[in-house]
Order: sequence, then structure tokens, then C-alpha cells
Amino acid sequence: MTHFSALSARLRFVLVRTSQPGNIGAAARAIRTMGFARLVLVAPQRYPDPEATAFAAGASGVLADAVVVPDLRSAIGDCQAVYGATARQRAVALQEFTPREVVMPVQTAAQSGGEVAIVFGNERTGLENDELALCHGAVHIPAAADYSSLNLAQAVQVLAYELRMGFLGNPTAPPPHRTDPPASAEQMEGFFAHLYAALYDIDFHKGRSPETIMLRLRKLFLRAQPDERELRVLRGILADAQRMARLARGDRK
Amino acid sequence: MTHFSALSARLRFVLVRTSQPGNIGAAARAIRTMGFARLVLVAPQRYPDPEATAFAAGASGVLADAVVVPDLRSAIGDCQAVYGATARQRAVALQEFTPREVVMPVQTAAQSGGEVAIVFGNERTGLENDELALCHGAVHIPAAADYSSLNLAQAVQVLAYELRMGFLGNPTAPPPHRTDPPASAEQMEGFFAHLYAALYDIDFHKGRSPETIMLRLRKLFLRAQPDERELRVLRGILADAQRMARLARGDRK
Repeated sequence: MTHFSALSARLRFVLVRTSQPGNIGAAARAIRTMGFARLVLVAPQRYPDPEATAFAAGASGVLADAVVVPDLRSAIGDCQAVYGATARQRAVALQEFTPREVVMPVQTAAQSGGEVAIVFGNERTGLENDELALCHGAVHIPAAADYSSLNLAQAVQVLAYELRMGFLGNPTAPPPHRTDPPASAEQMEGFFAHLYAALYDIDFHKGRSPETIMLRLRKLFLRAQPDERELRVLRGILADAQRMARLARGDRK
Repeated sequence: MTHFSALSARLRFVLVRTSQPGNIGAAARAIRTMGFARLVLVAPQRYPDPEATAFAAGASGVLADAVVVPDLRSAIGDCQAVYGATARQRAVALQEFTPREVVMPVQTAAQSGGEVAIVFGNERTGLENDELALCHGAVHIPAAADYSSLNLAQAVQVLAYELRMGFLGNPTAPPPHRTDPPASAEQMEGFFAHLYAALYDIDFHKGRSPETIMLRLRKLFLRAQPDERELRVLRGILADAQRMARLARGDRK
């Protein structure tokens, strides 16, 4: 079992009193894409429902395994860490985290074998005060002050995403796939010499000083980091331009 | 104009050949919650549509301002930086970024006054190769290998969220709201002395050595970081327990 799957196995997403079954399905899909699988539904208004299945797309397994309970205590009784999603300015003096900040305490709890729950309330009213009172902390997604109401499943997606990123240690993208080896400095200098000569042959400089333009072109091509094949293409272009220049001058070479 | 609004003004989200108008509306809401406002729709299959308006919830302003164009070139022609969302393993050797990694080049471009576009393809087929060819880089959201297909609007939400976090310099949550001042070390020692005495009075130790238990209790209460009011409550409890102990011993004090 990978480190990630060991951690993710301890995490559950709890949706409390959800009104729209579509949001339940979309939330199931959201957590599934991030490698999580456990959903607990506290007193969902309409569930099961074809809308939930439709929005779950291929994540119907998460719905099939979802646990339905009548109250929040039943959903989190065995959890060592419980974090409730909130809009800000609540009357409770609960420790608050951004999604990125909550990763650490969640990971710490999961790593020491504890069960962890992230709890989301009803779409309109959120979590009740007595439900927040069961939480160790509150999570708030930084949002625009004048329009801070994320769709429920979107909020679940953002939390699941941050937890995935955290559990994976902030993965980075692989470098671009280059089939040919990058050109060496010596090959680049060969190219620049060829370019320099070709610009003269096609009378690009027109009597002006070539230094500035050559510096600009050096910067451009060095930044592009051409590989050997690309350099061959470029030099082929230069060679054909030079050939045209010779023909234009009447040479027969 | 704040730094954030200056940056966000330069960012547009481009949806190409979207099939479901609901996804357009949900994407509009997704970007609005993160403080962005510019949506460009390239050849949407069904738009305008009541479903788009329904899913946009209160973000109908974003829809009202959305620009509809027939092809991707028209959507991004004036952009200095264009990033296309992709599922991995594409045949193109495009530089790839995670959402978190793409923040930097996006911010750099926006800060130097450039227009930036994040481009999303059709729900099922993504972006065509000739559309990706117009992009400076690809963005891929790290997802579960066996179920990597995020809903389109969810992918938009994640990108918008990371860009907001990046533009705001990774904001942190405020410390918990405490109305009373935290207890000083001297007040804590006064409490521990009181606790020590009270445990003796109620015969808690029962002949055992008190050091270990006192150390545990010190750790617990220091970790809880009580404020002055909480200490008064705790000491009130200790005082009442001591009073009971005196009554039980027959003292009349």
C-alpha cells in the first residue's frame, strides 16, 4: 500500500443535510478524482436519487459505498480530527485554517493512525453551531469578499485537491518530453557562426553594426534551448538562404 | 486598484466547444468566487441556455460579460501567455505545469501588463492538437491514475483557486478570536499550585507519587493555553471540590 493510499484510507468527507442530490454525486466524483473514496451523508434531503448517480459520472462506486447516518455525531464518533467547512465570521472561536493549512494537521492525524473527517454543511445554511461545536477546527476557502459562496461540490473539490497535493508532497510536473538530446554549447556556437555568416550573405545588416542584433539573436536562441535536430533544421534553413544568395549574385556553387 | 484586482483583470478563462451549458454556468460561478470575471466561450454547443444561468447562481454578471467567438485564435490573439488544460500523455512536447506551478508564469506575464488565458477543452475530448499548438504550456491537475476525469467546471474551480492563492501570496487564516487575554506564566503557576493542593484535598493520589500525574496535567493545561477567564472557571471548580472535601472531613469552613 502506497503512502498516499494509507493516508487517504483514513479520510472521510461528510456532507450534512445536503439539499441537492446532484451535489452529492458531484462531490463523490470530486473526491474520487483526487484518490479519495469515503463519503458519509448525514440526513441528506433526497438520497438515493437518479440525479446523484448522474452527477457522479463514473464515481458510482463512491456512492455505492457511501454511509448514510441521521446525525453528525454518528458520522464522526470514531474520528480523531474533525474539520468543518465554514464561511467566515462565525460566532464560534474555533481555530481556523485555509485548505492549505489544514493539510498538516490532517496528515499528522492520519499518519498516526487516526480517522479524519472534513465536514460540509447544507448548501444554503452551512453547518449549525452545534455541529461546528463537534469540530476541532474550521476550514475556510479564501474567496472573493463580495461573492464567497462556492457551490458545495466545488468546495469539496478544492479541499480534496489540496489534501491530495499535500499527501503527495506537492508533486511537480515532469519536464517536457524531448526525444533528441539538447545541443551542446559547442554546437550552439557552430550555429551562431553559421547564422552570422548567413546574415551577411543575405545582406541583412545593410551596413549597420551587427553586434546588437547578434546579441539579441543569441539570447533568443539560447533561451529556446534547441536540441540537435532543431539545430539541424535551422542550419538547413540558413544553408538554403545562403544558396539563394549565391545564385542571386550569379555564382554557380 | 489592489494588486490582486490588477492581476485578475488580465486573466481570462476560455472554454472551448463546451457541450453542457450547466458546465458553463458552473464555471462562471467558479471563477467569480475566486475573484475573476472574464470568460470566453469558443463555439459553445448550446449557449445562451437557461441551464447555464441556473448553474451560474449569482454569477450571472460573468455570463452577461462573457465573449462568444467561433475559434480559439479569436479568443487568445491578444494574449501573451496561453496555458491549455490537459489530461496527461499527450503527443505534444509542450512544457507541462501543475496548477500550482503555472501560477508563477501567469503572474509574471500579468505583472508585466500581459493578457493571460487558461484554456479548457470539450468535456469528453479536451483540446484538439491544433488548439494545444496555440498554447505556451499545458496545465495538468494531479489526479488519481485510475479516475483522472474531473468535471470541467471543477477543473476550472481548481485552477481559479490556485491562481487566487498565488496572486494573494498564499494567504493564511487569522488566529482564533479570543476575547480574554491569555493567562500569564505566573497565573498558570498559581493554577497549578491550586490544582496540586486540590488533588491532595480530594485524596486523588491515594498514596501514589504525584509527580507523574502533575507533569501530565501541566502538559495538558499548558497545551490548552487557557485565558484568564478560563483559569477563573477552572480554579472555581477546584475551590468547590476543595469545599466538598472539607465538608466531607467534617470541617466547617
